[in-house]
Amino acid sequence: MAEIPLAPIQRIIKKAGAERVGEDAVHALRDHVEKECLEAARMAVQLAAHAGRKTVRSSDVELAVQA
Amino acid sequence: MAEIPLAPIQRIIKKAGAERVGEDAVHALRDHVEKECLEAARMAVQLAAHAGRKTVRSSDVELAVQA
Repeated sequence: MAEIPLAPIQRIIKKAGAERVGEDAVHALRDHVEKECLEAARMAVQLAAHAGRKTVRSSDVELAVQA
Repeated sequence: MAEIPLAPIQRIIKKAGAERVGEDAVHALRDHVEKECLEAARMAVQLAAHAGRKTVRSSDVELAVQA
């Protein structure tokens, strides 16, 4: 089900200043980010349809993440 | 700077029901998700330190994404 790979999430936690990162933390953050991403994407799809388009554009995403 | 790859973000937008997805939309959503991820990771690092640990755990991430 998950699309976002774990390695970039681990690098982001390191970049945030972590000395050590538990594998469970990487999974937890990936799952959270994936869920937020899917919710924003669903809103963006609705906003594209609302504007009479079949193509999701960056303006849809920008409005979706504000909402 | 970006760590999260574009392909999984595009798949998530498709999974959200998009017929077509502009490349700009994929970039916009990846940038948003990456920013949110880094912010949550920074909070998780602080929460681990607050608990006297050097290792970031899932409990830090779970509290970070609530805050």
